[in-house]
Amino acid sequence: MLEGYVGKVRELLEKNNIDIGDLIQIKDNETVYEGLLMPRYEIFDPNYITLKLSNGYNIGIKYKPDLVIKLVSKYSKSEVKEEFFETEQYEVKKKINLSFIGTGGTIMSKIDYRTGAVKPSFNVEDLIKLLENYGEEFKINMIELFKIFSEDITIQHWKKLAETIYNEFRTGSQGVIIAHGTDTLGYTSAALSFALQNLPHPVILVGAQRSLDRPSSDAALNLKHSLIFSYKSKYSGVYAILHSTSSDDYSYVHRGTRVRKMHTSARYAFKSINSYSVAKISDNEIIYIDTEGLLERNANRSVELYNNFEEKVFLLKVYPSMNEEIIYFLIERGYKGILIEGTGLGHVPSRIMDAIKYAIDKGLLVAMSSQCLYGRVNMYVYEKGRLLLKMGVIGTEDMFPETALVKMMWCLGNAKDIEDAKELFLKNIAGEISQRTLYKYEL
Amino acid sequence: MLEGYVGKVRELLEKNNIDIGDLIQIKDNETVYEGLLMPRYEIFDPNYITLKLSNGYNIGIKYKPDLVIKLVSKYSKSEVKEEFFETEQYEVKKKINLSFIGTGGTIMSKIDYRTGAVKPSFNVEDLIKLLENYGEEFKINMIELFKIFSEDITIQHWKKLAETIYNEFRTGSQGVIIAHGTDTLGYTSAALSFALQNLPHPVILVGAQRSLDRPSSDAALNLKHSLIFSYKSKYSGVYAILHSTSSDDYSYVHRGTRVRKMHTSARYAFKSINSYSVAKISDNEIIYIDTEGLLERNANRSVELYNNFEEKVFLLKVYPSMNEEIIYFLIERGYKGILIEGTGLGHVPSRIMDAIKYAIDKGLLVAMSSQCLYGRVNMYVYEKGRLLLKMGVIGTEDMFPETALVKMMWCLGNAKDIEDAKELFLKNIAGEISQRTLYKYEL
Repeated sequence: MLEGYVGKVRELLEKNNIDIGDLIQIKDNETVYEGLLMPRYEIFDPNYITLKLSNGYNIGIKYKPDLVIKLVSKYSKSEVKEEFFETEQYEVKKKINLSFIGTGGTIMSKIDYRTGAVKPSFNVEDLIKLLENYGEEFKINMIELFKIFSEDITIQHWKKLAETIYNEFRTGSQGVIIAHGTDTLGYTSAALSFALQNLPHPVILVGAQRSLDRPSSDAALNLKHSLIFSYKSKYSGVYAILHSTSSDDYSYVHRGTRVRKMHTSARYAFKSINSYSVAKISDNEIIYIDTEGLLERNANRSVELYNNFEEKVFLLKVYPSMNEEIIYFLIERGYKGILIEGTGLGHVPSRIMDAIKYAIDKGLLVAMSSQCLYGRVNMYVYEKGRLLLKMGVIGTEDMFPETALVKMMWCLGNAKDIEDAKELFLKNIAGEISQRTLYKYEL
Repeated sequence: MLEGYVGKVRELLEKNNIDIGDLIQIKDNETVYEGLLMPRYEIFDPNYITLKLSNGYNIGIKYKPDLVIKLVSKYSKSEVKEEFFETEQYEVKKKINLSFIGTGGTIMSKIDYRTGAVKPSFNVEDLIKLLENYGEEFKINMIELFKIFSEDITIQHWKKLAETIYNEFRTGSQGVIIAHGTDTLGYTSAALSFALQNLPHPVILVGAQRSLDRPSSDAALNLKHSLIFSYKSKYSGVYAILHSTSSDDYSYVHRGTRVRKMHTSARYAFKSINSYSVAKISDNEIIYIDTEGLLERNANRSVELYNNFEEKVFLLKVYPSMNEEIIYFLIERGYKGILIEGTGLGHVPSRIMDAIKYAIDKGLLVAMSSQCLYGRVNMYVYEKGRLLLKMGVIGTEDMFPETALVKMMWCLGNAKDIEDAKELFLKNIAGEISQRTLYKYEL
């Protein structure tokens, strides 16, 4: 099959009866590499051969006419080792230090590779190749931290990720890119926005709706623009970079606390909610759109890590005829917080209000967001909202429910008590609350 | 105060020391009306006086120079009777028979009227006045069915509403308009779309984000366009008519199963999701946009009522680190269905999959929607989705979660068993499922 290999490289492999997954040796001058042949994607430089070495690292070897290739043994499933943590440290000695962290997801994987496993779809050379015309030299530290679909990302993964990013910056990284499945990318970007503060350089989450092996893939563009923004951005902070319109030229930079997946399958699924995008990026330019409140990039700034999240928090979406028994259940099970997704300006059925009062009396943090997603929660307009406020329910301002949920987990994890958590929740930490309400829908 | 009364009418009232809420008598030729003076809104014809009669009906009396007005007694709170069901049957003998059903909400109310109660903000004459230049004559049967904020609408209200509409059509109505709070308007329009089938004429839900007494109110335009569409529409079916763009000239007609409140406070909060709008309406024209699959209006068609909804259905929105214990709780409490709001194409954390399997084994109906809202659920793309399908989870196709929830309640209420309910759920009943996925975001 030799997926992704074309031209002279493919000829060389075919001549030696080599296929994907085979164990081979490549002699390049005096150095001999032995490893499993990995698939490549046509979107990247066709002049490289990718090997997975026995230590688990992927290496890219540039084609030369005098390379000597030898088949050691044909593919056998047992030789493909699966490791949860795996670090690729093949270094190209160059100037700008970037970190690339893989967590899994469509952007990092090919779906039906014949081993059945999730495989990385590119390596460090491929990434550097994307930047070859930008007049800079790069060193990219590639860390394959997880290999999971993003619906399985948990608080534990957020913590491991935040810690890894923290360490990268403490050891000289000048920009961190995280490849992430799109399903929960917005939750993770919110979590990192709260956990990592005073960042010297940008942290960028990047995903793709279509994998690299599909002709309509958005992966290469999103990757390239993430790399560009990681070293060129004037601002630090946590961002998500993805397609946002049907344009194949531009991807958009969203604030980490304002980005939401708004379509199950379209490539331009990600939107900034209650906020403009920070910038749009083409191969040739970064056009800043709204940079209000962003921290300027500053290599001397020292990153801070606030890495606790409370797991006993429930996201309760209200609906007609819902029963209040669920709230008593949550109290009984020791939940510490309930993030309500109410209707309209922040309303709930009258029927459940006693239970909400009881939850607050029992010491739970209860906050009100809106299932409208767009707009600001305002519980002062109607009598019932004012009653909820009086009970001690707090509004999420213009945070949409998912970001408010993550923030509640983070506040309860880091505050010293419930009053402190409330105060923290109502404070703007990472651009998630703004003073003015945005009426424009940026779609 | 005399809110809403201007010009000669106001002078007449002032001269007689009459204010809102006072009990007065008006002699018009040989007829004497006695009732409480109600407030009016300047947007309507200034030449009417509105009285609430002792039988609870509101009546509009046209100003003439020879009207004789007498104060009977000044306002006292106890005289303003609060009744849950109240019907205004003041009839103007004219040609087109329309029904107008009030349920409460911003469109029907003034927020801080001094009695503290929710008061209707217009009467039949006001509505007919809105249509005076359209060359037709109207008879409007106004039924004030409920006076509640829409977050308190339950299945019981849906049933009462569907039954009332059914009866209106059985007794000759040629179009039904329902004034409804905006918070749960989309849930109710979905419920009516399933409960009322084979409709001869349109059923239109109308709401407003700003009440009539506010200068920026969208109530008058939405009301007027609802009335126009109710008798002019070429199609029957259930619709919602509201502002949809920042234009003050047009409101939009949405399918009852496709409309969602997408902003907490903007006047153009309502959007069609995964569907184009049916039409846009100005004072002068109806421009049809997408009428695919709609039933043509036909007075000879006989409306059918399928009016059962299962209350024991839970809307479960998934999120990172969620605990599966909630699912066991729902099973234990005898829930009949769970509508999951999954991530992306229809995914859930692996952690909760055993509990989902257990729920299905226990006979619950479990369906998967997406918190993206836009796009189609597709569980065939990834291994885990296929596993969910194999367990018996059914996808919601391109229904967004709220419509899918209402449909599940309706299917479980009307089907003879779980298999029948599943089959019904996957069938397009009222335009809620389409074959092609709409990639355009209509925003």
